[in-house]
Amino acid sequence: MCELLGMSANVPTDICFSFAGLLRRGGETGPHGDGWGIAFYDGKACRTFHDPQPSADSEIAKFVRSYPIKSRIAISHIRRANRGRVSLENTHPFTRELWGRSWTFAHNGQLRGIKRWPLEYYRPIGGTDSEHAFCWMLDQLRARWKDAPKPTVLDSAIRDLCRQIEALGVFNLLLSDSRSLYCHCSSRLSLLTRRAPFGHATLIDEDLKVDFASETSPDDVVTVVATRPLTKDETWTELARGTLSVLRGGELVG
Amino acid sequence: MCELLGMSANVPTDICFSFAGLLRRGGETGPHGDGWGIAFYDGKACRTFHDPQPSADSEIAKFVRSYPIKSRIAISHIRRANRGRVSLENTHPFTRELWGRSWTFAHNGQLRGIKRWPLEYYRPIGGTDSEHAFCWMLDQLRARWKDAPKPTVLDSAIRDLCRQIEALGVFNLLLSDSRSLYCHCSSRLSLLTRRAPFGHATLIDEDLKVDFASETSPDDVVTVVATRPLTKDETWTELARGTLSVLRGGELVG
Repeated sequence: MCELLGMSANVPTDICFSFAGLLRRGGETGPHGDGWGIAFYDGKACRTFHDPQPSADSEIAKFVRSYPIKSRIAISHIRRANRGRVSLENTHPFTRELWGRSWTFAHNGQLRGIKRWPLEYYRPIGGTDSEHAFCWMLDQLRARWKDAPKPTVLDSAIRDLCRQIEALGVFNLLLSDSRSLYCHCSSRLSLLTRRAPFGHATLIDEDLKVDFASETSPDDVVTVVATRPLTKDETWTELARGTLSVLRGGELVG
Repeated sequence: MCELLGMSANVPTDICFSFAGLLRRGGETGPHGDGWGIAFYDGKACRTFHDPQPSADSEIAKFVRSYPIKSRIAISHIRRANRGRVSLENTHPFTRELWGRSWTFAHNGQLRGIKRWPLEYYRPIGGTDSEHAFCWMLDQLRARWKDAPKPTVLDSAIRDLCRQIEALGVFNLLLSDSRSLYCHCSSRLSLLTRRAPFGHATLIDEDLKVDFASETSPDDVVTVVATRPLTKDETWTELARGTLSVLRGGELVG
């Protein structure tokens, strides 16, 4: 299984601490040694870093871990290949443009038969079932609306699409259109919201501690979503199977 | 004016040396302090690094400069904003998918009135005339072919599109579909091919020298394209205005 990490915040926030924990799972404390990637949103665009190397040894990962890129939405993925060979084109997160916005998609699980679902506009670059599912979702949305609908309308359309895809297998998903972070839990996904009063936290995978009180201002709201909890002294909520959680500005809104 | 840098090679080659020279022009030896970006192809996919910060101070640029990512095609751009504010979404190179391949586009110049050209399928994320031109080109290609045509057929279609766009202003372009590097010279673009016997070269913008003989094997062919020559002891060829040069595997093929 791959590991997912997502963040939604109401102010530009760096994800270095959580990312440090995730990285160790890529070939060191976890078996996910087939590449990794991360996307940071800035307005409607996002910048991505990808590496087909195991994250635990990756020079790019070390750089991203130490260089605080502040963002309101971030999505990361560490891969354990089960479908599609280890290569850059199969490394999540995947990105496409729809309605003049950058969309980003990272998935764990397998989707049997998804490649038989016809595609109209978007085409996969690599060979994963994940990227096919992403293209199919965007195709459905594009066919339905010429321009972005209201967020709440879009939320329920995405919920429907997740339900359809989930019928094919395991579909743990992090998806963003630059406004919202969509988190679909099919088998395993945990969530944690940090807000005032801020405390401190210690990573499970590495001997690293952070005091959020010294790094935040009182109005900050930051929600982190991950396949498995990343810290040992905070209370993570396991998302219910078969549900889509929608985050905007750090808050759970759907 | 922005500065462009492109590379086409017959073996995966790092662009660190040339990129080091280019970087200095971003806010230090040149006035192009409004962000920079670079794309490295690996198969049909590419990885990109973008930073709206001036390249001369950019931590990401320092990293990319020192970390040799080997690629057969690379495209880089340092921006001096004249249209569109300084932001990530206005930072070249731009990327889109067409025919299951990653396309990358970097431009210098201004195109008056391009935003009135209608777009069908691709939509800009930022506000530059460059990204609008990119979307328009891909729209035309998509409307004409459902799947990628033969490279030579595609070459002449791209030549035609460049001619149309050039009527609006200055259109120095680097474009790639993962197979070819297209270089359109509208006002200024120079090219240099390195092949055996390899010599050494010294950057114009920085006191940095490289001995290619010790870094290459005899069959390597590497062509570098840049707005202005980057080295002082090699013979660069100025491309003729109004021409499209096509590179595949380091060789000029059209």
